[in-house]
Amino acid sequence: MASKEAIAHFIRTEFPQARVVIEAVGNQGATVAQDIAEADLRPGGTVSGPTLMGLADVALYVALLGEIGIVPLAVTTSLTINFLRKPAADRRVIGQCRLMKVGKTLAMGEVALYSEGIEEPVAHVVGTYAIPPRSAT
Amino acid sequence: MASKEAIAHFIRTEFPQARVVIEAVGNQGATVAQDIAEADLRPGGTVSGPTLMGLADVALYVALLGEIGIVPLAVTTSLTINFLRKPAADRRVIGQCRLMKVGKTLAMGEVALYSEGIEEPVAHVVGTYAIPPRSAT
Amino acid sequence: MASKEAIAHFIRTEFPQARVVIEAVGNQGATVAQDIAEADLRPGGTVSGPTLMGLADVALYVALLGEIGIVPLAVTTSLTINFLRKPAADRRVIGQCRLMKVGKTLAMGEVALYSEGIEEPVAHVVGTYAIPPRSAT
Amino acid sequence: MASKEAIAHFIRTEFPQARVVIEAVGNQGATVAQDIAEADLRPGGTVSGPTLMGLADVALYVALLGEIGIVPLAVTTSLTINFLRKPAADRRVIGQCRLMKVGKTLAMGEVALYSEGIEEPVAHVVGTYAIPPRSAT
Repeated sequence: MASKEAIAHFIRTEFPQARVVIEAVGNQGATVAQDIAEADLRPGGTVSGPTLMGLADVALYVALLGEIGIVPLAVTTSLTINFLRKPAADRRVIGQCRLMKVGKTLAMGEVALYSEGIEEPVAHVVGTYAIPPRSAT
Repeated sequence: MASKEAIAHFIRTEFPQARVVIEAVGNQGATVAQDIAEADLRPGGTVSGPTLMGLADVALYVALLGEIGIVPLAVTTSLTINFLRKPAADRRVIGQCRLMKVGKTLAMGEVALYSEGIEEPVAHVVGTYAIPPRSAT
Repeated sequence: MASKEAIAHFIRTEFPQARVVIEAVGNQGATVAQDIAEADLRPGGTVSGPTLMGLADVALYVALLGEIGIVPLAVTTSLTINFLRKPAADRRVIGQCRLMKVGKTLAMGEVALYSEGIEEPVAHVVGTYAIPPRSAT
Repeated sequence: MASKEAIAHFIRTEFPQARVVIEAVGNQGATVAQDIAEADLRPGGTVSGPTLMGLADVALYVALLGEIGIVPLAVTTSLTINFLRKPAADRRVIGQCRLMKVGKTLAMGEVALYSEGIEEPVAHVVGTYAIPPRSAT
């Protein structure tokens, strides 16, 4: 297990380009948030798919690190996203992850993505991670 | 919208081979259950993948009919299943569906599948349905 | 590696209810076929989703056994199906699998499903398998 | 239908931040390529998941425009990516898309992603697009 602060520090160090804020982590889940920048927008004032997918991927990673500790070599093996509604261009995107399995070699979770303050999700993601053999955490 | 009884009647009539019991429907969701028969089992005493996928598909369909009424022509367009744990051979499988979007032409939902009485899910499904243009329900 | 005959024998023994014929296996792929029975049909004279998913799952398994040998404990970890066209009720369903990765612990492949003799696919499947640590094959 | 030049012009105008080169389009498919920039890389010298997903999404969109003409309102409804091998940091990423269905309201295709010059794919994507009612193209 790793604390929110330890994970935030690790993400900042390893992924300096990440713009994600960790709101909460623990209990097989995590909530992360990201400001929307000009480069995240698409014509029509919507948030790009890759921005949403990237945020969901980080949410899964943070939730997983919260369970197994700082394991830099955990890698995403698959990700399925369903786009549900047009995200707001002027609100942060929130990713709420819930892990459904943390096995020895595979973890799986889902992420609901929201425009902050709006109840209905803009997208839903299911992702799997491969966990390397654990030596130390 | 359609009631649990109306949906159960429709399923029995249209899909006479279905062995699903509708436990609850409404509020953008549904819970269904199925006894496990000899033909559903696989070596090692586990429940076959197609049995789980079929049950999840029905759970989505029931939840959708609960929202849009009896629409026989709604068809599954995609389904993603992640197998999480070995199901028990001697317990009913329960499917809990939650719809995340019911649009004019597309609906999307997720289903958590359980062996009855066991807390951790055996599989997780995300599915989409195409809804035909609504004339009458 | 395992031959078509060895795999067919294994499938018959372990999955006596399987109705699949192995047409070809090898070169990171497999082709399988299945007759459609009354129980596979749905209203409107189409083939049920679970029948298609089950056949795709077997196609992946056969292709994988062709690469790694008879490994009974390989298990499906995920499967994504997209339904593309209505299958013919009176033609065999053909599954053509192509493996895209056979790693030490994970394999991944795709399957195109056809109504025999019709060019356009009725469904497309992507699946992943977990491979147990190899002792012997 | 739209030509490679018309599509390239449209993409440049509508998505000025896109860095994709269209290598080929037509026959229900498309090949696109993208240089890898510093911002696309991740620790260990690999290409980020969102970069691969974004490229696959563009490959699908280009292939679709090649079939139905310049339809700005076609939107991605789902995307499933399987990560297969570590991409090379110093090679372009190539996306080869093949459409499997172009219906009136839904299209579906797959994309194999490669590090240029290397035979085995780094990732595989299946995506669906919703097509708005066609007025004119």
